[in-house]
Amino acid sequence: MAGLFITFEGPDGAGKTTQLTLLAEALKASGYDVTVTREPGGTLISDRIRRIILDPDHQSMRAQTEVLLYAASRAQHVLEKIKPALAQGKIVLCDRFVDASIAYQGYGLGVGEEQVRMINQFATQGLVPHKTFLLDIAAEEGRRRLAERKQAEFKQGLDRIEQKDLAYHERVRRGFLRLAEQEDRIVLIDASQPVEVIHQQILREVRSLLQQKA
Amino acid sequence: MAGLFITFEGPDGAGKTTQLTLLAEALKASGYDVTVTREPGGTLISDRIRRIILDPDHQSMRAQTEVLLYAASRAQHVLEKIKPALAQGKIVLCDRFVDASIAYQGYGLGVGEEQVRMINQFATQGLVPHKTFLLDIAAEEGRRRLAERKQAEFKQGLDRIEQKDLAYHERVRRGFLRLAEQEDRIVLIDASQPVEVIHQQILREVRSLLQQKA
Repeated sequence: MAGLFITFEGPDGAGKTTQLTLLAEALKASGYDVTVTREPGGTLISDRIRRIILDPDHQSMRAQTEVLLYAASRAQHVLEKIKPALAQGKIVLCDRFVDASIAYQGYGLGVGEEQVRMINQFATQGLVPHKTFLLDIAAEEGRRRLAERKQAEFKQGLDRIEQKDLAYHERVRRGFLRLAEQEDRIVLIDASQPVEVIHQQILREVRSLLQQKA
Repeated sequence: MAGLFITFEGPDGAGKTTQLTLLAEALKASGYDVTVTREPGGTLISDRIRRIILDPDHQSMRAQTEVLLYAASRAQHVLEKIKPALAQGKIVLCDRFVDASIAYQGYGLGVGEEQVRMINQFATQGLVPHKTFLLDIAAEEGRRRLAERKQAEFKQGLDRIEQKDLAYHERVRRGFLRLAEQEDRIVLIDASQPVEVIHQQILREVRSLLQQKA
């Protein structure tokens, strides 16, 4: 398979979409054929699965169901969109992938890393990103950004659910950091740095990867 | 866990729903607390997943996606409905379960028995039926019933897709029969027999099971 598969991971608010967009623009300006996509979603069927996962009426959803729905959405996304784009030699930039499931469901919901890994191995048919940029921010910093956003929207302080969410997001972050220790392909990035500094770091890594492949 | 978990397997038209209904009525008449359910479906979330699986607009659905969606629907069904009913000591009668996924996706779609088994082990958290009634009919007989039904509906003969479906259903049947050889819990029933003969055979098996538990 030709092509280059790059994923962006990290919590909401870490700047994944900003960095993904800046990288896509830089690569396109250099003449590369770039496909930008995201999870959950990316195809008609994946988007319908995404709506089930995110529907606020589905409070009764069990952790195992959630793991399998994310995996189903991902299987369709990989087989219908990502693998064909890579086969055409494109650079595929994807917002979240298997690492997100390991961190959010494996660590956050406590389903366990090995189970989530095994199911996603089946879903992706073994596809692993060439490079993953993990945008890391402290859980406290995430809390601060959440508080700021709520203030801007004239809402009150953190409620019980959001406090619970902080503990959940601390487990998620620990999961991401453990993955970064285990896997050479994951580049850990301090997301508190200025946008342009992060962009240049990512661009250096990707250009080096493209030279290795050339 | 108290309770008794009984599943019905076999192709469409073999008489699963008829037999399940007759058994439920007989058990209720004897004073048992019976829950009747079916797959895919059985809960709000499972039903929404079912609609994605069956939607005719989803021709692009890959085999891996289908396996994971059935498993997601099943996980929710087991954890929200079946396990709680069994914990209350009920008799749960379910139209299709894991064996159907092994036969239809594992053998019919060619995904492989071991992969489907592994994913469903996670989805069901190890729940296995106490007894399974496999209503078996020959693929040729299935074809005959299909032709009859089409004639009754003033439609033409079998088209290319339906011919393909016959080969698919022959693989599915082979899968079911292999499972019946492997697993003692599966009772293989010749579904070409009269409805009442089959019902009495099923009832004898279930009464014997209830006596063992008593």
